[in-house]
Amino acid sequence: MTHNVAILGASGYTGAELVRLIATHPSLKIVGLSGNSKAGLHMAEVFPHLRHLDLPRLTTIDEMIFDDVEIVFCGLPHATSQQVIASLPQSVRVVDMSADFRLRDPADYEKWYGKPHAAPELQKTAVYGLTEFYRDQIKDARLVAGTGCNAATGQYALRPLIAAGAIDLDHIIIDLKAAVSGAGRALKENLLHAELSEGAHAYAVGGTHRHLGEFDQEFSAVAGRPVHVQFTPHLIPANRGILATTYVQGDASAIYDTLSVAYADEPFIKVLPMGQHPSIKHIRASNFCHIGVVADRVPGRVMVIAALDNLTKGSSGQALQNANLMLGLPETDGLMQAPVFP
Amino acid sequence: MTHNVAILGASGYTGAELVRLIATHPSLKIVGLSGNSKAGLHMAEVFPHLRHLDLPRLTTIDEMIFDDVEIVFCGLPHATSQQVIASLPQSVRVVDMSADFRLRDPADYEKWYGKPHAAPELQKTAVYGLTEFYRDQIKDARLVAGTGCNAATGQYALRPLIAAGAIDLDHIIIDLKAAVSGAGRALKENLLHAELSEGAHAYAVGGTHRHLGEFDQEFSAVAGRPVHVQFTPHLIPANRGILATTYVQGDASAIYDTLSVAYADEPFIKVLPMGQHPSIKHIRASNFCHIGVVADRVPGRVMVIAALDNLTKGSSGQALQNANLMLGLPETDGLMQAPVFP
Amino acid sequence: MTHNVAILGASGYTGAELVRLIATHPSLKIVGLSGNSKAGLHMAEVFPHLRHLDLPRLTTIDEMIFDDVEIVFCGLPHATSQQVIASLPQSVRVVDMSADFRLRDPADYEKWYGKPHAAPELQKTAVYGLTEFYRDQIKDARLVAGTGCNAATGQYALRPLIAAGAIDLDHIIIDLKAAVSGAGRALKENLLHAELSEGAHAYAVGGTHRHLGEFDQEFSAVAGRPVHVQFTPHLIPANRGILATTYVQGDASAIYDTLSVAYADEPFIKVLPMGQHPSIKHIRASNFCHIGVVADRVPGRVMVIAALDNLTKGSSGQALQNANLMLGLPETDGLMQAPVFP
Amino acid sequence: MTHNVAILGASGYTGAELVRLIATHPSLKIVGLSGNSKAGLHMAEVFPHLRHLDLPRLTTIDEMIFDDVEIVFCGLPHATSQQVIASLPQSVRVVDMSADFRLRDPADYEKWYGKPHAAPELQKTAVYGLTEFYRDQIKDARLVAGTGCNAATGQYALRPLIAAGAIDLDHIIIDLKAAVSGAGRALKENLLHAELSEGAHAYAVGGTHRHLGEFDQEFSAVAGRPVHVQFTPHLIPANRGILATTYVQGDASAIYDTLSVAYADEPFIKVLPMGQHPSIKHIRASNFCHIGVVADRVPGRVMVIAALDNLTKGSSGQALQNANLMLGLPETDGLMQAPVFP
Repeated sequence: MTHNVAILGASGYTGAELVRLIATHPSLKIVGLSGNSKAGLHMAEVFPHLRHLDLPRLTTIDEMIFDDVEIVFCGLPHATSQQVIASLPQSVRVVDMSADFRLRDPADYEKWYGKPHAAPELQKTAVYGLTEFYRDQIKDARLVAGTGCNAATGQYALRPLIAAGAIDLDHIIIDLKAAVSGAGRALKENLLHAELSEGAHAYAVGGTHRHLGEFDQEFSAVAGRPVHVQFTPHLIPANRGILATTYVQGDASAIYDTLSVAYADEPFIKVLPMGQHPSIKHIRASNFCHIGVVADRVPGRVMVIAALDNLTKGSSGQALQNANLMLGLPETDGLMQAPVFP
Repeated sequence: MTHNVAILGASGYTGAELVRLIATHPSLKIVGLSGNSKAGLHMAEVFPHLRHLDLPRLTTIDEMIFDDVEIVFCGLPHATSQQVIASLPQSVRVVDMSADFRLRDPADYEKWYGKPHAAPELQKTAVYGLTEFYRDQIKDARLVAGTGCNAATGQYALRPLIAAGAIDLDHIIIDLKAAVSGAGRALKENLLHAELSEGAHAYAVGGTHRHLGEFDQEFSAVAGRPVHVQFTPHLIPANRGILATTYVQGDASAIYDTLSVAYADEPFIKVLPMGQHPSIKHIRASNFCHIGVVADRVPGRVMVIAALDNLTKGSSGQALQNANLMLGLPETDGLMQAPVFP
Repeated sequence: MTHNVAILGASGYTGAELVRLIATHPSLKIVGLSGNSKAGLHMAEVFPHLRHLDLPRLTTIDEMIFDDVEIVFCGLPHATSQQVIASLPQSVRVVDMSADFRLRDPADYEKWYGKPHAAPELQKTAVYGLTEFYRDQIKDARLVAGTGCNAATGQYALRPLIAAGAIDLDHIIIDLKAAVSGAGRALKENLLHAELSEGAHAYAVGGTHRHLGEFDQEFSAVAGRPVHVQFTPHLIPANRGILATTYVQGDASAIYDTLSVAYADEPFIKVLPMGQHPSIKHIRASNFCHIGVVADRVPGRVMVIAALDNLTKGSSGQALQNANLMLGLPETDGLMQAPVFP
Repeated sequence: MTHNVAILGASGYTGAELVRLIATHPSLKIVGLSGNSKAGLHMAEVFPHLRHLDLPRLTTIDEMIFDDVEIVFCGLPHATSQQVIASLPQSVRVVDMSADFRLRDPADYEKWYGKPHAAPELQKTAVYGLTEFYRDQIKDARLVAGTGCNAATGQYALRPLIAAGAIDLDHIIIDLKAAVSGAGRALKENLLHAELSEGAHAYAVGGTHRHLGEFDQEFSAVAGRPVHVQFTPHLIPANRGILATTYVQGDASAIYDTLSVAYADEPFIKVLPMGQHPSIKHIRASNFCHIGVVADRVPGRVMVIAALDNLTKGSSGQALQNANLMLGLPETDGLMQAPVFP
């Protein structure tokens, strides 16, 4: 049986990544692709690497017909998404990859995004899309809010530990190294090859990164009390991948055991043997997340390090995994491609 | 139905790439992996990106049992391959990815590789593995000799043109830009990141590159007279991909038409619209080859540019495509993964 | 004695490179920096790597006072330059780094740049800035037109050979690999790190690159007859450097001798031992140009390969070398910094 | 007046970097270069980027004549250095760039380097080469021990703060991102371009990195009590540069003021305006170190971020700065080259 899907915002990186993954999915069929600024073009003109695929031409969103569409993936920019999704017919289910529906509290949204939410009623119905922790709700959701890619990485490392009370909640540091495709295809000076290659620097330092809203929301909910992690993302000269080095306080063995148990049956989350730690090189272009635990020389200080691909497990792969759940398909359909190395 | 395969030399890049591709193949099962220097290790210890797969442990070649193996892929170093393959039981069919069986004439082999061939009788039986041009012979072969990755790229651009008499045989220049994984996992100073990144230089300049033996053999055979192209490979700071810019003399339209017709039904060879040309970025980690034709401002001068991934279409993807043929499977099984971009 | 200089367009890469070089020049002093879109800012805000220097604040061109300025370096965009330079006081001498004054024939300019020149009288007075071949005229020039960076690289490889009649004028191919900073700090999709890293492709294929106007003008003048080379530039994933692989027909030894003699006394042009060839890694961030000659396996076919840094010897270093000449200073002042490796 | 110097271990990256810097030094002259495995070669054969310099041929250490040499720079591998330096004539003064003399306590040396020191008497006389903090002792030293490049970066960020009691000594985390040239020219699999490019991972996690010996020694000495920082280095796909993100607890304004005052008169250490932070892109190939301070959203949590070039300020530039001091020369001689950008 074939399930028809459409992708809004298909001319961005998350849209292209989704097409790449769906290309070998056994039962999804792409029947609509929108890209307002590129409407009328073939995908091969926008993304020549998709040349071999038989895909519908890009249209505007207004031109798109949703009658036979079961799932709409939405890869539109923040703020635009909430308006577009609010206008979609109720018959379609939505997997959003923007930031618009991640924060449940409208006040939180306004605090982190600087203006009131345009679809607050819809926001209430959205399910947070961190698959492994919201599986049951995602299955039945009409609207799933894809997580921030940094927020996903940090949560995979820490969420089971906070839930289990295995670490000190007041001393959590997340030092994150992010590849550049997480910033999208935006024309910004600091994203130029000449500016980024051979460079490395922090950004949004001091607690201003919007993914902190997700950390605060989720970690506080899990802990049952406010948790405010210290989070510093860095841009590194690579295209794909996020490495989150987290510094926590607790018992290393207990931490390791907690993570091992939490992810024992997960198809995509792999806890490495104790003392080993991951590289973004080893999860590239895949839906896998590798997690390592290392004890410091000073007892009670522990590093938990997580790696995933921001475009796959951190965004489009997560979206497809959630869509599989929503459609009652095997969760791993289209997602078992091995990482690309070297 | 499942077909059992084994990979010799699985601790190199071509071995790892083959495992990556077979991981999502519908009917191949890896039952043996050899890597003499890494015997006893799990693949996850040698290639952590393959951690999620259930694979046999690495063994020595001597320990390997070939009873139930239908196809052996051989990713061993040059010179070693001919000895190992000569000792394999006759019951297994072999897809070699080394250089050992590419040249049909023992004198040619000795000229380009500097010593006599150790298995000249076996050499006579080998079929040259450029799938699109040796398809029928590959189906029935016991031993298929994978082509050089540079040799494949140049041939995809030029072979139909030489066969058709569409270009001047005495003025063919192949200026090739190769990513570094083609050199394998060898510990050489010039392959270090610090030496290669931000660098670019020619190598094997002046007609000394061994893949010239393949160009000479194949182009001369097709032309029915000796053809000696001028070939200069360059190393560029990238991991995967070969871009071959070929300079030929002929009629641009006739050249374009010849290539379009030659590859019209090929699943992996894509001729771009006239005047467009490819990037290695658009075929990365896939089995596709993109070819473009551009006329120069001076009539009669034409550029034919081809791009493929040296590890996939140039080596392990080609090997798998050939194995599919040998087993009577759909030629595209396990190979339709879209290129990874960005 | 100190010579006052000003830089127009100091917020681009060539402007910043010039500041870097002048920072250790023994007798030049920067008294004015313009950058219209960044007027009012400190250079440290635009280029944090220049933070340690005591520099004038950026102004608009209109605000700049030229009274005490001896030399104005002009790093403005094409087309803008001709208007600005035409309006400068006659008392200042000008080293232009744009394309506006490279072509002597107004018809050529219009052909390659698509519109009539706005300052044709000024154009007549400009001296082509390829230092080693226009030294005497540069010394006395009021306006020196910096060459195209690709045009410089190709000319260093071929100009003495054409002048000496050492190569066949009808079979000259220049296959050029260029790093990305040659495209400037422009916000273009193909210059993004995510698009360029791990990529390589040709551009302006077929004879449309504007630097062909310079090749045609200069090579034809030297040859005394029209010469139309075949020129294909490629973009490679590096920040600095141009490698020009040229394919010519002639006697390899004669070619080598011609180049060796031509550059014997040049401080910045180094001809490598016969058979060796250069890497852009070995001239990076310096004013040196390395040239190699290699004979092909087929007698009469020869490769001449040249490498230089597009921002230094290909642009700002050339400009400073020319300014030194104009001011009667040692030509190497401020330019003897060794290449940065690795 | 000219000062003669020699470089032992000139075929490694720190040796080559030193030659690059000395090439434009006003009064140092290189009279000897050793490289045992490359003895007999010209530097241009080992490092083609130094082709334009008139340098002595490489010799073995045994062949080197030290009679007229004032300063010997030693870029030999660890363990080798202590034996070689112990055998040098007393007449020469030594700037060591290895790890051999960094730790004052022989027990510390044995703990971190796994065997007893071979020259413990010499070790006692060595001065730790962190120029800004050991200036007076360096001036008169016979043997200066160059610091670890990571150790230098962390100390520039934190040392004044520990000395001033401005931060909590029990909660200091140093998350460091290091480019690959710090690992030298060693032929190791993880240093290959194919393995490192598009990768990022931690190493020596958990308190095993040898530079911790320096942190412990220096920070404890400054604090007057044991200080054991938590230190995690990461390898990123770049060639030059170290970015140290340090997480400390204290008052952000006091921290900023302490650093500003400490480095107010330093020619190479630049404290950025409050709230700004550095990039390795902006200090590349220079002797500058940029430091930024940012307050976290939670009062009392502060990030201090430092960037320097491991080969220059972290090694060879530091060595030259120390040699200048030892010779009574201006400390900045040969070191004022601006960073290379882009």
